[in-house]
Amino acid sequence: MGNDLLKGKRGIVFGALNDMSIAWKVAERAVEEGAIITLSNTPLAVRMGTTNELAEKLNAKLIPADATSVEDLEQVFAQSMEALGGKIDFVLHSIGMSPNVRKKRTYDDLDYDMLTATLDISAISFHKMLQVAKKMNAINEYGSVVALSYMAAQRTVFGYNDMADAKSILESIARSFGYIYGREHNVRVNTISQSPTVTTAGSGVKGMEGLLDFSERMSPLGNATAAECADYCVVMFSDLTRKVTMQNLYHDGGFSSMAMSYRAMEQYNKSFEDFRDENGKIIYG
Amino acid sequence: MGNDLLKGKRGIVFGALNDMSIAWKVAERAVEEGAIITLSNTPLAVRMGTTNELAEKLNAKLIPADATSVEDLEQVFAQSMEALGGKIDFVLHSIGMSPNVRKKRTYDDLDYDMLTATLDISAISFHKMLQVAKKMNAINEYGSVVALSYMAAQRTVFGYNDMADAKSILESIARSFGYIYGREHNVRVNTISQSPTVTTAGSGVKGMEGLLDFSERMSPLGNATAAECADYCVVMFSDLTRKVTMQNLYHDGGFSSMAMSYRAMEQYNKSFEDFRDENGKIIYG
Amino acid sequence: MGNDLLKGKRGIVFGALNDMSIAWKVAERAVEEGAIITLSNTPLAVRMGTTNELAEKLNAKLIPADATSVEDLEQVFAQSMEALGGKIDFVLHSIGMSPNVRKKRTYDDLDYDMLTATLDISAISFHKMLQVAKKMNAINEYGSVVALSYMAAQRTVFGYNDMADAKSILESIARSFGYIYGREHNVRVNTISQSPTVTTAGSGVKGMEGLLDFSERMSPLGNATAAECADYCVVMFSDLTRKVTMQNLYHDGGFSSMAMSYRAMEQYNKSFEDFRDENGKIIYG
Amino acid sequence: MGNDLLKGKRGIVFGALNDMSIAWKVAERAVEEGAIITLSNTPLAVRMGTTNELAEKLNAKLIPADATSVEDLEQVFAQSMEALGGKIDFVLHSIGMSPNVRKKRTYDDLDYDMLTATLDISAISFHKMLQVAKKMNAINEYGSVVALSYMAAQRTVFGYNDMADAKSILESIARSFGYIYGREHNVRVNTISQSPTVTTAGSGVKGMEGLLDFSERMSPLGNATAAECADYCVVMFSDLTRKVTMQNLYHDGGFSSMAMSYRAMEQYNKSFEDFRDENGKIIYG
Repeated sequence: MGNDLLKGKRGIVFGALNDMSIAWKVAERAVEEGAIITLSNTPLAVRMGTTNELAEKLNAKLIPADATSVEDLEQVFAQSMEALGGKIDFVLHSIGMSPNVRKKRTYDDLDYDMLTATLDISAISFHKMLQVAKKMNAINEYGSVVALSYMAAQRTVFGYNDMADAKSILESIARSFGYIYGREHNVRVNTISQSPTVTTAGSGVKGMEGLLDFSERMSPLGNATAAECADYCVVMFSDLTRKVTMQNLYHDGGFSSMAMSYRAMEQYNKSFEDFRDENGKIIYG
Repeated sequence: MGNDLLKGKRGIVFGALNDMSIAWKVAERAVEEGAIITLSNTPLAVRMGTTNELAEKLNAKLIPADATSVEDLEQVFAQSMEALGGKIDFVLHSIGMSPNVRKKRTYDDLDYDMLTATLDISAISFHKMLQVAKKMNAINEYGSVVALSYMAAQRTVFGYNDMADAKSILESIARSFGYIYGREHNVRVNTISQSPTVTTAGSGVKGMEGLLDFSERMSPLGNATAAECADYCVVMFSDLTRKVTMQNLYHDGGFSSMAMSYRAMEQYNKSFEDFRDENGKIIYG
Repeated sequence: MGNDLLKGKRGIVFGALNDMSIAWKVAERAVEEGAIITLSNTPLAVRMGTTNELAEKLNAKLIPADATSVEDLEQVFAQSMEALGGKIDFVLHSIGMSPNVRKKRTYDDLDYDMLTATLDISAISFHKMLQVAKKMNAINEYGSVVALSYMAAQRTVFGYNDMADAKSILESIARSFGYIYGREHNVRVNTISQSPTVTTAGSGVKGMEGLLDFSERMSPLGNATAAECADYCVVMFSDLTRKVTMQNLYHDGGFSSMAMSYRAMEQYNKSFEDFRDENGKIIYG
Repeated sequence: MGNDLLKGKRGIVFGALNDMSIAWKVAERAVEEGAIITLSNTPLAVRMGTTNELAEKLNAKLIPADATSVEDLEQVFAQSMEALGGKIDFVLHSIGMSPNVRKKRTYDDLDYDMLTATLDISAISFHKMLQVAKKMNAINEYGSVVALSYMAAQRTVFGYNDMADAKSILESIARSFGYIYGREHNVRVNTISQSPTVTTAGSGVKGMEGLLDFSERMSPLGNATAAECADYCVVMFSDLTRKVTMQNLYHDGGFSSMAMSYRAMEQYNKSFEDFRDENGKIIYG
């Protein structure tokens, strides 16, 4: 029931694990808008998640690949072009993982091999994707590449740890490669900075629940959902945004432009309330 | 030949003067995407420009109004709702004018009455539009309001004069009102920061030609055209961007994320070439 | 007991009302660092506040003036140069007032004459100050001009109302005029974006107390005090920052670079605690 | 001839190679302001450069160390505290190198081992420095740590290559670690984004000469020199900036807030001039 916004377009969606994944929604919406796509995720994720179901449902080839491996990425682009019958028009990068977070290493006690892994998986994989695609000339003129980011790249969120650094370099890559891919092939490269979203990936982050509530009350439109993010991705893949590149686009119900909302302040102020009964007397328990 | 992105939606487009205007293109594209609209411009602009032709072509009511007048704006919303048969879904503010620029007053010799006029016409009119709409409850839930801006709001462009201040406050209004309109009616308010564009309005700016060339060479995708800007406005009016608010969205081929491109540098470097003949000898004339 | 950082320099400090004012601290610190200064405030403020005491204490001439009046500002610069025996080296603009806030007009119910007054008093006065100074050639080469701002210019703070728009244009003026004054006389123009500070001016802002607490817990170094702001102003007036211009400098203990701190989140989360006794049973009052 | 701004303070300066280095000037100025310091650089740099001369001149211990090695950094802090007789008050990180740039690998043909090295040397070394210092509790309360950055972290400069990504993560580290070090020990962490500067390090960058000229003409105050940068570092190390943290501070004569200056435009426009003789006739050679 789409609007044919991606009619005739070919895409690759990286990072759909299960139906909570933003990438999952993007894949569904892209097909709904007329695109044909392939899916890719790590072999481990393919075993652990339900990407196979999605592939079947969308009649999409699923290509297991390690996005930190140049060779694997070459395979993804080669097989995608073959399966879809031509060059690619859009790519979604929805990949992120921090071994430091997993192992509960705090940011002032990082393991540096793990940091290298965080950056490699969550950010440099994006550069590899772009470099491979460009070398293979695998993306059509006016194609569009999007990676998902988070505002921790600009402002510190406690507990987000080295993922903040990863998102920071991810957005830098979007600019640096966007310049080159744009000037040579008119390919756009952007990041979408999404509200905190309850996904399997996001659920590991410390204090997620309180953060989601705060974010919801701070944002005049509330947190953006995964489904709404998929809509925004469709828009960025379509021909209607052909001159938008090297941008980090906030998709967050307004959170990024807020310092303090009335609703969040009101809630915050409740934290100072004494426990009192209806006569205003303090209740000691 | 649109995609029905605005099917069933009602809009108001302020500021279409002639077929070079961005607002003109937005009006055309909005209708193409299934919207019904009204047009508004100042009585003077209506006489001087060709907005009437556009109104006729698009079968749109043209409502002359001074956007600095609260009463006039109330008329625009009232008549638009009547003409279109219901509340409004989207509004474009494409209004800007600086008497100081017109009168060639430089920024260190501003006339302060003229500055007040610049701000009133180019920015406060946007607040009035929003305040009037909200008081009349004239915009539907999940409606979308867009104003056109320019990156002089962030970075100084010589000769842009007090219009920089106007764009700066325009973007501030989008945030401040976006917060309120969002929390109460889920209405989004954004600005689009467009490439320098050859329009009747833009043509008065000092050194426009060189600036356009520089901007073109700096931007990996080149300057965004008025037609492309219209596409982007359509996207921002559509239901696909429902959680984007209080943002300033660069639509500029990447210019805003560039400090120096190879092409612009190469051109710049030509300025230092001596006048030499084919043997490398300097030519003195 | 200063460091002679402003030895031999002449300055003008606008906006010291009483000893809670940031401008008051700046005046004291500037003199402590070896400067000679004049003070200026509105005739009304001079009557209501204690600026006279400060003038006496610092042996500084107090020049009552309405900063929205070009003539008054000409007087301030003329009399200051005469009193101090030469051209001016630094200027502080610490002026802000919103009649809409005073009259409790909300941002979606602004009185537009009052808005014009807000902008005139809080922002355009800064342009007038700079234009007057430049026309009179009243500021020395490598002089420094600072205006105090607040991050509501970038991110919405509920209740800050039209002062957000005023701060936004204030910062724009710093850029636009900074460009011109810099290229022609090497005069720097910057704004300092200060933590919310308990001053007589700041105390009118809605929900100030909760905001101060939140801001304190969000900022790793806590809120910056008025005295600390004065130190930062001294630095910006000194010769050690000669190439810093057209900047908005956050002086806020880190707040501007935070999205969520552990301390603020912890406090926020307390707001959800049920009223329970020590056995975990809910207390109904 | 300083102002005793760093009287009694102990510092470590990383990255002084020769008298063109910014770090060299910072070391000199810090001592001039009353500090006692140690110097550190790689063993190779110590052999190739003239850091020894500086050490002798400033009576500063020189500690050769590889800043990518945690063990080496531990040695630097341990030996510095011993040599200086107490905990450290300020640290300068002025370290950057890209093997990809050296080997002329373009950004769309990066070698990924080299990219890892670029990030490790130019950015992660900063995290290691901070983590080591914090674990050793080697920095005094209210200490100050500064790293030198460049605006390619925000806006693409052709030819700056993977150093843009490195600066991007460097600034992210300043925020992320600044949050933690601030909340626990009131230590500030900031980056200074310096004008392009002719140093031995900077001289390898492609098209440096034209870029310097463009930058000079764009900046109302001209490019900031290494000596001026040293002044700014002194200010950031002093007690006068105690509430500034997690910031990226532009020290660039205004460049970062410019989109186009009159002088740069005028020069740019010359590039289009035909070669003509004094009678206006085109010269064909």
